[in-house]
Amino acid sequence: MGFIVEGDESGDVVLEPPPNFSMVEEGIFRSSFPRPCNFAFLKTLNLRSIIYLCPEPYPEENLEFLRSHNIRLFQFGIEGKTEPSLASLKDAIRGALKILIDVRNHPVLIHCKRGKVIVQIQLLNVSFACGTELIKHRTGCLVGCLRKLQNWCLSSVFEEYQHFAGMKSRSADLRFIETFDI
Amino acid sequence: MGFIVEGDESGDVVLEPPPNFSMVEEGIFRSSFPRPCNFAFLKTLNLRSIIYLCPEPYPEENLEFLRSHNIRLFQFGIEGKTEPSLASLKDAIRGALKILIDVRNHPVLIHCKRGKVIVQIQLLNVSFACGTELIKHRTGCLVGCLRKLQNWCLSSVFEEYQHFAGMKSRSADLRFIETFDI
Repeated sequence: MGFIVEGDESGDVVLEPPPNFSMVEEGIFRSSFPRPCNFAFLKTLNLRSIIYLCPEPYPEENLEFLRSHNIRLFQFGIEGKTEPSLASLKDAIRGALKILIDVRNHPVLIHCKRGKVIVQIQLLNVSFACGTELIKHRTGCLVGCLRKLQNWCLSSVFEEYQHFAGMKSRSADLRFIETFDI
Repeated sequence: MGFIVEGDESGDVVLEPPPNFSMVEEGIFRSSFPRPCNFAFLKTLNLRSIIYLCPEPYPEENLEFLRSHNIRLFQFGIEGKTEPSLASLKDAIRGALKILIDVRNHPVLIHCKRGKVIVQIQLLNVSFACGTELIKHRTGCLVGCLRKLQNWCLSSVFEEYQHFAGMKSRSADLRFIETFDI
């Protein structure tokens, strides 16, 4: 745990974690989409990988940060030419979960998008429609599935989900987590 | 990270973390007041100590859990015969912070009370009045001071505080964190 942060040439760096940043488990972090102002903070985590749960291309400045710090990007965008089914969504979350619990990928940061950008994504998500609603808050769903794997009771899993989803909380996400077969 | 939880004689244990449970840093956890239904979960954290930030006596059943798992209790109740000053409150938080960042005490859980009980505590807190308002959400204040020590920018410190304090958020707490001299 680094309490003493090394200053750069200009002195002490004030660190700005991405919004909604939190430690999920040893070696596993979650946050909203990191912007360049968050890079100095991310550097202190010594990340080995990032799990990105949206289909949009990763911004070039973020890719550059990843390249220069040797961080591997695992993108689970669940994009498809044809409409992906709920089954393929579950497969994607299962794939992300495998990467997530593999300690060789730790420390790992999971994120999707939040804030204003979420509106665009939800519009884009229309292309994922599969008869019923699809999951919206992907980071929350992935962490929820991880908690099931850890034997957390559902009420605690939901509490944590809602804690981070806030206004973005969706009952479809809770159903997804509940029915996800670990 | 224990994804496979050993079952007891009766099979798999479903784990119930205390409300508002979260990992703060490697070896540092926070939560609301743990009840007996949370003990099976707490066991999986292999805690070495607990920092308890309220003056009320620790319940006997919790003490028994601590004794049987060799967990040390550090209580910073800030109780006093005479009215404690803001200075003595700061001293207490500083004392708690020292215990908190000492890795010999890790893994450590910080908690005060929350939920309905908070009302009683806030009434009890009247005895701590010191001219101005005093801090209410002590776990949040302690973690806020820790984040300052870690060089987090204030807006991120406040975001995290509000995230966990929710409706209990107090501007006096934010002022306390802001003016706390690490």
